[in-house]
Amino acid sequence: MKKINFLIGIHNHQPVGNFDWVFEEGFQKCYRPFLEIMERHPSIRFSLHYTGPLLEWLDKKAPHFLDLIREMVRRGQVEMLGGGFYEPIFSMLREEDTLNQIRMLREFSENRFGSTPEGIWLAERVWDPSLPKILSHAGATYTIVDDLHFRYAGLAPEEIFGYYITEKEGLSVAVFPIDKGLRYSIPFKPPEETIEYLTYLASDNNGMAVTYADDGEKFGMWPGTHQWVYQERWLDTFLSLLEEQADLIKTITFSDYLQSYPPMGRIYLPNASYEEMMEWALPASTALRYQDMVKEIRVLNREEKYKPFLRGGMFDNFLIKYPESNLMHKKMLWVSDKVNRLNQDPHDVPPVQEARRELYQGQCNCAYWHGLFGGLYLNHLRNAVYEHLIKAETISDKLNHPDGTWLDFKLYDLDCDSSPELIISSDTMNLYFKPSYGGSLIEWDYKPASFNLTNVLARRVEAYHRKLKEAEDQSERANNHEPKSIHDIVSQKERGLEEFLHYDWYNRYSFLDHLLGSETTLENFKTSRYPELGDFVNQPYRVVQISHTPSREEIRVTLGREGHLWEKDGKRFPVRIIKSFNVRGGSSEVEVVYQITNQNTATLRLWFGIEFNFNFLSENDPKRYYFFPGRHIADDLLNSTGKEGNVATICLRDEWKNLEVACTFDPPAEVWRFPLETVSRSEEGFERTYQGSAILSHWEMELPGGESKTYRLLLTAGEIKSS
Amino acid sequence: MKKINFLIGIHNHQPVGNFDWVFEEGFQKCYRPFLEIMERHPSIRFSLHYTGPLLEWLDKKAPHFLDLIREMVRRGQVEMLGGGFYEPIFSMLREEDTLNQIRMLREFSENRFGSTPEGIWLAERVWDPSLPKILSHAGATYTIVDDLHFRYAGLAPEEIFGYYITEKEGLSVAVFPIDKGLRYSIPFKPPEETIEYLTYLASDNNGMAVTYADDGEKFGMWPGTHQWVYQERWLDTFLSLLEEQADLIKTITFSDYLQSYPPMGRIYLPNASYEEMMEWALPASTALRYQDMVKEIRVLNREEKYKPFLRGGMFDNFLIKYPESNLMHKKMLWVSDKVNRLNQDPHDVPPVQEARRELYQGQCNCAYWHGLFGGLYLNHLRNAVYEHLIKAETISDKLNHPDGTWLDFKLYDLDCDSSPELIISSDTMNLYFKPSYGGSLIEWDYKPASFNLTNVLARRVEAYHRKLKEAEDQSERANNHEPKSIHDIVSQKERGLEEFLHYDWYNRYSFLDHLLGSETTLENFKTSRYPELGDFVNQPYRVVQISHTPSREEIRVTLGREGHLWEKDGKRFPVRIIKSFNVRGGSSEVEVVYQITNQNTATLRLWFGIEFNFNFLSENDPKRYYFFPGRHIADDLLNSTGKEGNVATICLRDEWKNLEVACTFDPPAEVWRFPLETVSRSEEGFERTYQGSAILSHWEMELPGGESKTYRLLLTAGEIKSS
Repeated sequence: MKKINFLIGIHNHQPVGNFDWVFEEGFQKCYRPFLEIMERHPSIRFSLHYTGPLLEWLDKKAPHFLDLIREMVRRGQVEMLGGGFYEPIFSMLREEDTLNQIRMLREFSENRFGSTPEGIWLAERVWDPSLPKILSHAGATYTIVDDLHFRYAGLAPEEIFGYYITEKEGLSVAVFPIDKGLRYSIPFKPPEETIEYLTYLASDNNGMAVTYADDGEKFGMWPGTHQWVYQERWLDTFLSLLEEQADLIKTITFSDYLQSYPPMGRIYLPNASYEEMMEWALPASTALRYQDMVKEIRVLNREEKYKPFLRGGMFDNFLIKYPESNLMHKKMLWVSDKVNRLNQDPHDVPPVQEARRELYQGQCNCAYWHGLFGGLYLNHLRNAVYEHLIKAETISDKLNHPDGTWLDFKLYDLDCDSSPELIISSDTMNLYFKPSYGGSLIEWDYKPASFNLTNVLARRVEAYHRKLKEAEDQSERANNHEPKSIHDIVSQKERGLEEFLHYDWYNRYSFLDHLLGSETTLENFKTSRYPELGDFVNQPYRVVQISHTPSREEIRVTLGREGHLWEKDGKRFPVRIIKSFNVRGGSSEVEVVYQITNQNTATLRLWFGIEFNFNFLSENDPKRYYFFPGRHIADDLLNSTGKEGNVATICLRDEWKNLEVACTFDPPAEVWRFPLETVSRSEEGFERTYQGSAILSHWEMELPGGESKTYRLLLTAGEIKSS
Repeated sequence: MKKINFLIGIHNHQPVGNFDWVFEEGFQKCYRPFLEIMERHPSIRFSLHYTGPLLEWLDKKAPHFLDLIREMVRRGQVEMLGGGFYEPIFSMLREEDTLNQIRMLREFSENRFGSTPEGIWLAERVWDPSLPKILSHAGATYTIVDDLHFRYAGLAPEEIFGYYITEKEGLSVAVFPIDKGLRYSIPFKPPEETIEYLTYLASDNNGMAVTYADDGEKFGMWPGTHQWVYQERWLDTFLSLLEEQADLIKTITFSDYLQSYPPMGRIYLPNASYEEMMEWALPASTALRYQDMVKEIRVLNREEKYKPFLRGGMFDNFLIKYPESNLMHKKMLWVSDKVNRLNQDPHDVPPVQEARRELYQGQCNCAYWHGLFGGLYLNHLRNAVYEHLIKAETISDKLNHPDGTWLDFKLYDLDCDSSPELIISSDTMNLYFKPSYGGSLIEWDYKPASFNLTNVLARRVEAYHRKLKEAEDQSERANNHEPKSIHDIVSQKERGLEEFLHYDWYNRYSFLDHLLGSETTLENFKTSRYPELGDFVNQPYRVVQISHTPSREEIRVTLGREGHLWEKDGKRFPVRIIKSFNVRGGSSEVEVVYQITNQNTATLRLWFGIEFNFNFLSENDPKRYYFFPGRHIADDLLNSTGKEGNVATICLRDEWKNLEVACTFDPPAEVWRFPLETVSRSEEGFERTYQGSAILSHWEMELPGGESKTYRLLLTAGEIKSS
C-alpha cells in the first residue's frame, strides 16, 4: 500500500512597525479566509506559525480569530509552531535574547492556544551551525529549512525527504527539508498538479514524507492570489482533493511525524538560507557576477548538476553591504547589553520586562536587510526598530539613573571596525560620533520622542538596477518597433526611475566637512557628481580633547584633522579643521564651534561646507516641512530641493510628532537642501523612496596663509516652537 | 616610496600518537635547520606556531631548541602564535574545552618563551562564524585563514590584503587572509619568483600587507624539500634576497602590523576551510560530481570567475562520511562532559588536571578526518585518541567511584541519530551496544589497557579510488604501447592495490548476526560479495529487557529482533534472534546467550553466523597473532586469512600490550578469520592499511518449525594467559 506523509507548515508574519492598514488588509484578504477554509476540512492536519507582531494585533483587533485557532488546536487539526516572538534572525542575536524570545512565543501559545510548541519556525530560514545547541537549550525538538541546505551538505535530491538529525556539541535537533517544488506550486499551480506530484512521491515506505512550508501571505496577500485562492477556490479544491486521496496522502503535523518515524540520517548544514536570499546578501558587484554565472550555467544546461556547489553569501553579509544595517545591528547589541545587565533582583520587575519587550521588538528582522521586499529601504520599518531600541535603552538608563538629569560618554568600538566611536548619552539625547569617518555624527537620538533623527540610508548600487537600465534601453528599442518579450518588462511604480539612480560615495551622516570645487552646483552636489577638493568627508579625525565639568554636567569634545585642499593640477595645500561639540545633561542642544585654518603660507580660496542629513519620514507630507524663522517659506516640504542665502536658522519640522530640529549658523550661511531618494525593488516593482533630507550649509572665503576662520553652530532638537 | 608589509606565519605540528621516529626525523630534517637558518637572518621578523605534541616532545628531547626560540622571541625577531594546545578543530569542541586548550598553550608560551600569544593558529583553518565570540573570550585579537574564505564573503581578489575585522554578538577579532599564490610558491618555486611577486605588490600605500602562512613541514619534511630548502639553499637565498629588498619588503609580525595599521574593513566569513579540505569533506559520490564540475569549468576557462561561488562541504561532514569518526567524536564529547562535571572544589586537583590533559590529547584533529594525509585511516592515530579518551574517562570515573568495583548502565543517544545506545560501564570495561544497528557492540573498551578493542574502520568508496582504477586501465593500455603522460602516473606503495578495493555494506561492529546463503565462501564473505539471506545485520533490535541485581553487581541486557530469512524466489520466513549479554562489575568477561527461533511452521535450513571485528594494530607483526587453545597454530598472524572447524575458543593476542581477547563458543563453531584492509591515500601515494581482524563464527542447522537453538558465548579481555 503506497503512502506519502504530507507535512504542511504555514508561516504568517507582519513586521514590527508596519502600517495598521496592512495588518487589516492581511487579516481580511488572507489570514481569516485561509483559516476559515482550513476549519471546514478538519481531517487536513497542519502546523501554523504566527509571529508576535501579528499575534498582538490579532489579540487586540480580532480575538475571536485566536479563539478559532485554539479550537483547531484542541481538536488536533493544528499544531502551533514556536519561534522568536518578534521574528528575529537568531544568528544576529545574543543567545540569551534568542532564548527569551522563544520563551515569549511559547508562553503566548500556552496561554492563548493551550499548546506548547515543539518546533521552531526559523526566520527567513537563516541557518547557522550553532543553532542545534541554542534550539536544544530552548527546549525545541525540530525546525524547518530549505532542501537546498541539504544539497549543500552533499545529499542527493532523492535523499532529501522526511527529516534529519543534526547536532552541535552533542545537542541534537531534527531538521525538515522544505521541498522547493511544492514552494513554487502551492498555491500558484492548479491543485491537481500538486496532488499529482504528491501521488508520484507515494511509496511502499510508510515513513516517506515531504514538507511544504512557506509564507501564509501567498494565500491572499500576494498580487492576484486572493482572487485565485478564494474566489476561484484554489484552496477549497486543493483540500477536497487531499481528502479524496486520504489513503495515499496523509497530512500529519511535524511533531506527530517526529514521534512516529525515525530520521533519514544525521546531517550537518552550513550557513545558508533560501537561494534567493543568499544572492541578495552578496555585494552588488559580486551579485552581478553571480547572476552572469548562473545565466551561463543555465545556457550550458548544467544548473541542476552544479547547484549543490554554488552559493551566494551568508545573511551577515547584509551588515557589510549596508553600513546603516550594521549600525542598527550594533545599536541593538549595545541596547541588549544594557537591558541584560539590568539588576534583575527582584527578578523581572515590570520596567525590566518592558525594556526586554521593546528590545525584542527592535530585533524584528525585516528592517535589517533587503531582498525582494523593501526591508531596509522602508524608512518606517527602520524607524520602528530605532524607536523600540531607544525606548528599551531609555527604560534601562532610567533604572540606572533614577535621579533625573545625567550625562555620560564612552570611547567604544560600537560598529566593530576597530576604531572607537565616541558615545555621548544623556537623559535627553544620544550622540554617536565617528572620529574615523570625517569626525561625523552617525546617530542622534532624541529620547523624549524615541526618535533617531539621523536614520538616513545612502543611495547605493543594487544588482537589480541593471534591469532598470536594461528596461530603459529596451524601451528605446521598443520605440524602434523591435519586439519585446513579457519577461523583459520591468514593473515600475512610476516612469523614469532610472533618472533617480544616483550613487553616494560616502555614508549620509552629519557634520560631514566639504571643500567644494568652484563648479559645484546644487544639482551636481545632489547627484554626488560635484568636485570635492578636500579630504575630510570620510577620512579620520583625531580626538583632540575630551573635557568635562567635575560632575559631568557638561562635556566638550574636540575632533580635528590636518587634511588638504587639492587643486586640479595635483597640487595640495594643508588645511586643518577643528570642531568642538558641547553637550549638557538635561538639554537637547549641541553647541558646535568649527575652526578652519589655512596651514599654507599663501592665501587659499576655500568654499567650505558642512553637511547634515536628517530623516523625518517625509515624502510629500504637508505636515513635515522646512521653516526659516522670520521668513515666509514655511510650506517647503522636507522632500523639496531649494537654496537660501544668508540663513541664520533653518528648522526641519514634523507636526505629526510635534518635533523639530533647528540649525543655527553664525555667521549666517548659504543653505542648500534636497531630499535623498533611493530606487529599490519591492514586491510591487521598482519604487522611489525618500530616505532623508540633506542640508548643506556653506561659506566661501579667502583665507590668508596661517589664518583661521571660526563658525559657530547650534543644533537643537525638541518640540515645535511657535515662531 | 613603495612598500609591502610581508607577514610570515609558520605552523609546525605532529599529531598526538605519531611515531617517535617521525618527531625525530622532523626535528633533524626540518624544524631544527629551519630555525637555525632563520636565526642567522635576525632582521627577518616572523610568527611561529608549534602545537602541544611537538612542544612536549621538544621540551623532553631537545630543550635547547626551545631556548633558541625564547632567545629569538626576546630579541624581537619572532612572535609566538597561540592556538588549541593539542591542535583541535574548535568547531568540534565544547566551548570550555576550546578556552582551556588555548589557555594551556598560552601558559606554555609564557613559561617557556616569556611571550603571551595574541593570535591564534586555527587548526586546518576551519572557520566557523561563532569563532569571533569564542576567540574574544579566549583573549585573542587575531587569527589567520585562507584568502578563499574572503572570496566566499563576496570580496574581489584585489581587496584581499592586510586584515579585516569580523565579529559575533559584537565581539571582534581580526582575520588575516593567506595568499594562496605564496602558499604554492614558498618554498617550491625559485626564491626570485616570490621576491618578484612581493615587489609587484609593493605600493604607495604604506599599510599594504600580504600574508604567507603555512605548514613548517614544507621546509624539509615534504618529499624532496630537505634537499631543496637546505642543501640547495632555498631558504638562505630567499632570506638574503628579503634582506636586500628590506626597503621595499618589510617583514613584520602579525601583532605589530595590527598595532600599526587599520583594517581593510569589516567582514563575515562563512563556514570554510582551504579549498581542498572542503572537497575532501564531501561524500565520495558527491565529491566525484564536484571534481567533474571543476574539470568542466576549467575546460570552459571559467574557473577564476566561478570560484568565489563554488564550494564543497564543511568540516563537520566528515562525521557523516565516516561513522567511525562520528563515534570517536561523540565519545570525546561524552568524556568531555564527564571531565567537565568533575567536582572542581578544591579547584584543579592533580587528577582533574590530568583528566583534562588526557581529554585534550584525545581532541587532536588528525585522526578525525581524512584528506591528503592518512588521518582517520591511520589506526595508530585513532588508537591514540581512544587511549587518551579512555584514560581521561577512567580518571574521572575513579573520582566518582572511589570504592573500587562498580557497574552502571544508561540508555543514551550517544551518536546523535535519535535512537538510544545502551551504555554499560564498569571499573574494567565499557560496552556500547547499538540496538538500532543489529543490536551490535560498537565499542568495547578494556580499561586496564586504555584500549578500544573494536576500533575498526570499514572499507568505503573514496573519490580518489577512481584514479586508482583509471591507473589500472592506463597500465593495461601502456602494455599496448600507448603513450602515457607523467600526470597520469598514480603513485602506489605496492602494485595491484586495486585488487584490494572491496566495499563494506555495513559498519564493522561486533555481534553482527548473519543468515548466510549456501554459496557463501570465506573469499566472497571477505570481499562483502556473499549472499546475505537475513535482515539482522544492520536492522533494529528491540531492547527486550534490562535487569540487574539490587546493588548492580551484575547487569543482563536482552536484545531481540523478529526478522526474516529470505529465499531466492522472494519468499521470506519469520526468524527470531534473541541475544542476552551478562556483565559483572570488576570483571572483563561478557557472557552471551543467543537463541535463534524458527517462527515458521515448516523446517528451515539456517546457516547462522556471528561476526566480530577487533583491531590490535597488527600488520605482519609476529607478536600479534591468533591462538587456539589446545591446537598448534599459534603463529597465524592477526592479518592472516584462515578457517578452523569445531573451534571451542579463539584468542587474539597482542604480546606488545600483553593483551588478549578470547571468544569461547558452545557448541563449538566453524570459525573464519580475515583482515580488513583499506586502500587509502597518503602524502606518499596510495597504501593498504590493516584496519582490524574479522572473525565469523558460524553454524549450520536444520531447525524444525517453532523450534529454537541456543548458543552460548563467552568473551574475555585481559592479560595473556599462558596456555
